[in-house]
Amino acid sequence: MGKEITSREQDYSQWYNDLIIKGNLADYSAVRGCMVIKPYGFALWENMRDVLDKMFKDTGHQNAYFPLFVPKSLFEAEEKNAEGFAKECAVVTHYRLKADPDNKGKLMVDPEAKLEEELVVRPTSEAIIWNTYKGWIQSYRDLPLLINQWANVVRWEMRTRLFLRTAEFLWQEGHTAHATAEEAVEETRRMLDIYADFAENWMAMPVIKGVKSPNERFAGAEDTYCIEALMQDGKALQAGTSHFLGQNFAKAFDVKFSDKNNKLDYVWATSWGVSTRLIGGLVMAHSDDDGLILPPKIAPIQVVIVPIYKGEEQKAQIGSVVSSILAKLKMLGISVKYDDSDNQRPGWKFAEYEMKGVPVRIAVGARDLENNVVEVARRDTKEKTTVSIEGLDIYVANLLNAIQTQMFNKAKAFRDEHITPANTWEEFVHILDTKAGFVSAHWDGTAETEDRIKELAKATIRCIPLDNPQEEGACIFTGNKSTQRVLFARAY
Amino acid sequence: MGKEITSREQDYSQWYNDLIIKGNLADYSAVRGCMVIKPYGFALWENMRDVLDKMFKDTGHQNAYFPLFVPKSLFEAEEKNAEGFAKECAVVTHYRLKADPDNKGKLMVDPEAKLEEELVVRPTSEAIIWNTYKGWIQSYRDLPLLINQWANVVRWEMRTRLFLRTAEFLWQEGHTAHATAEEAVEETRRMLDIYADFAENWMAMPVIKGVKSPNERFAGAEDTYCIEALMQDGKALQAGTSHFLGQNFAKAFDVKFSDKNNKLDYVWATSWGVSTRLIGGLVMAHSDDDGLILPPKIAPIQVVIVPIYKGEEQKAQIGSVVSSILAKLKMLGISVKYDDSDNQRPGWKFAEYEMKGVPVRIAVGARDLENNVVEVARRDTKEKTTVSIEGLDIYVANLLNAIQTQMFNKAKAFRDEHITPANTWEEFVHILDTKAGFVSAHWDGTAETEDRIKELAKATIRCIPLDNPQEEGACIFTGNKSTQRVLFARAY
Repeated sequence: MGKEITSREQDYSQWYNDLIIKGNLADYSAVRGCMVIKPYGFALWENMRDVLDKMFKDTGHQNAYFPLFVPKSLFEAEEKNAEGFAKECAVVTHYRLKADPDNKGKLMVDPEAKLEEELVVRPTSEAIIWNTYKGWIQSYRDLPLLINQWANVVRWEMRTRLFLRTAEFLWQEGHTAHATAEEAVEETRRMLDIYADFAENWMAMPVIKGVKSPNERFAGAEDTYCIEALMQDGKALQAGTSHFLGQNFAKAFDVKFSDKNNKLDYVWATSWGVSTRLIGGLVMAHSDDDGLILPPKIAPIQVVIVPIYKGEEQKAQIGSVVSSILAKLKMLGISVKYDDSDNQRPGWKFAEYEMKGVPVRIAVGARDLENNVVEVARRDTKEKTTVSIEGLDIYVANLLNAIQTQMFNKAKAFRDEHITPANTWEEFVHILDTKAGFVSAHWDGTAETEDRIKELAKATIRCIPLDNPQEEGACIFTGNKSTQRVLFARAY
Repeated sequence: MGKEITSREQDYSQWYNDLIIKGNLADYSAVRGCMVIKPYGFALWENMRDVLDKMFKDTGHQNAYFPLFVPKSLFEAEEKNAEGFAKECAVVTHYRLKADPDNKGKLMVDPEAKLEEELVVRPTSEAIIWNTYKGWIQSYRDLPLLINQWANVVRWEMRTRLFLRTAEFLWQEGHTAHATAEEAVEETRRMLDIYADFAENWMAMPVIKGVKSPNERFAGAEDTYCIEALMQDGKALQAGTSHFLGQNFAKAFDVKFSDKNNKLDYVWATSWGVSTRLIGGLVMAHSDDDGLILPPKIAPIQVVIVPIYKGEEQKAQIGSVVSSILAKLKMLGISVKYDDSDNQRPGWKFAEYEMKGVPVRIAVGARDLENNVVEVARRDTKEKTTVSIEGLDIYVANLLNAIQTQMFNKAKAFRDEHITPANTWEEFVHILDTKAGFVSAHWDGTAETEDRIKELAKATIRCIPLDNPQEEGACIFTGNKSTQRVLFARAY
């Protein structure tokens, strides 16, 4: 029956890899740290991308495309940003290969085709984009400039995990320019809200909106906002970030605008991004030991119909009933697949679509047809119900909505149960070692304390939640004065 | 009045650059040979991509994503392909930068972070994809494998032109695997038909379908099919290619399948692609000395409405009438922009949207409203008509269709007038030097003759048209026996 998956209890990390590989989302590649996104995984990404893209456009953003390569001299212009990414840069140094005289049929880098200036493969595009904005922005009339790019980026990571951390990944990066700091902060928060809306209402993955501590800020940002999700093993996952960049990049690239009074000033900036990493979060937030569980609103296949028959005559009978069911479901905008292939038996197909996380399965047997019913199974709870063919389309549409809601509620209940206050260091470490999840604790606000906690407990400050209640207390580690609790966790 | 454009007669090449830059399609970048695709240009590309993507999916293809990098040892596996692209390869040799000890604030490539094996930035993805297919294909049940990828690729070109020839460009590349040569050839032809359909019925750009001569074949292909378009200066443009790859890549990467009788054989392959180059072709096929002329079916903005008013009261009156026009046009699926900005006068706006090639412009003046009419101008012919507001939506919808048809007919008439038979070498050269366009001439079928003709007349064989009539004749250059005419042209 189907493919073997390691259970979560046995080996959570292997369970995750099994789901990605056996669920046909992605595959390893011949390139260190890079993955192949398989058609099923890519269809999922396309659904996510299309929803986000519409949200961006509905808020006035336009897509554009900037070069893959960043000349080293531009890359190093914003020093903090450059310093932050320097260790992870793939660098192009040559532009030609030639036949290797010592190895017939082999090629070698042509030493005569060395670039005068090395090109960095973009790990993020602030540098190349702000260098371009310099030519696009002169006056307040050119602002705000609201641009997004869907692109591949490369960060040379030493330890990689499919989707979660790969050397190359796909993402979107928004880069906006504004006349005032207030407008830029407003934009930063607007995009954070869009990410949270997407995570919760489409991915059914609850998130906490917050601000990063200075240690965890994006290199070159004044403030980094984030959404943090919780995985089933109690580890946190940063699911999206939105940065207020101040005037750092405008100064590095000399981008000024004249205001209505002809006064010149540097432009204010934001950048924000989510990536294929979200797919890793989606998988770990919902799935079980039988495979993926995908939320209906972004599942590539929402409903699969499997016929159960003996012989061609039964198959034809079922097929004719199913064709009208298919038409009705499609009328409601439901994406449905009829799998009547003869290669595999129904039981194998059941396991296969469970593995792939298809939210609803409809089994149609010859005997069912006599009673004008089918069997409807939902993937998340595995409940099976006998449903009349009449009105089946409406039943399924409602069921998809119910699954979407239930998946969110379940993940939210788990997340809420896993925000635990700690008031002593012992308690703090004990929670991390046993229950895991977010630990809400006082922190004295210094980078040194944060570093020491990370070193000793392997936990980082995931965020300072927005609208965090202010409360006097003592730092969990130093005992120094603190004005608020922050959320710690071990994280991906 | 608006921005200056060089006329075609004055300098065709500068006219093209002016349209791209001043029409806001793209911009130069700081990276040699790479361009920035601006929002207006990218919206055009998105429309083209979405139409093509649907055509691919409707014919059973799925999207996936493969790594940007190709390890050198994989890249060189299919020798002809490797040899064909070796001279244009950007090569990653290092994976880290570090602070330059001799230059404060500057970075340098870290010599200790040299890759053991260099990575080629994909110029095309056959190698990395066929290396992956090896793991995906075992049996005839895994075939056909019909996959497409939307991606960026890099080919280090010495002479670049915006859109037409850039070091990095965006494209789609289909890579399919089949059990038989016949099926693979059928797929190659099917995708060629899709490209021709798209070029003619969406881009309004007539194309000739044909086969390349061996000299012009894709490196590693058994046969290259192509669509060839004609630009207004009489030069040809290869607009898309579809390759029958035989078993070359299957052999290079050892991809075998077992057929129904358990017999092992190598898989048959195709690949096919179109790129952002199409935008260059689109611009040159239709535009005039006042700017771009975009076909309605892919134009980012199909209709622009410009109010003509004095004072806020008139503006409000016009605004209220326009809002109902907007609603009706949107109901018909027409993409429409209302430009009521106060920054510029109507005359400036007229010139701006002419420059941008918006197919239909509607001017609404206060006096017009008294008569319940508006002025409708079409971009392609510049005709203006006074049209009643009642029924305006249907009028505009029909007009958009008429423009689409007229643009195709005009381009086709031009193209057909520019296929000229030549029967002597003098005639051949004379046509190329004066009238230009395609020259239909006999060729003896040898690569040597083709090379010599290219050298002497700067013309290449664009294609041997499909279903080419067979006719005895003498080669235009050598006088040797020939069985058919082929199409020569100078080309982009």
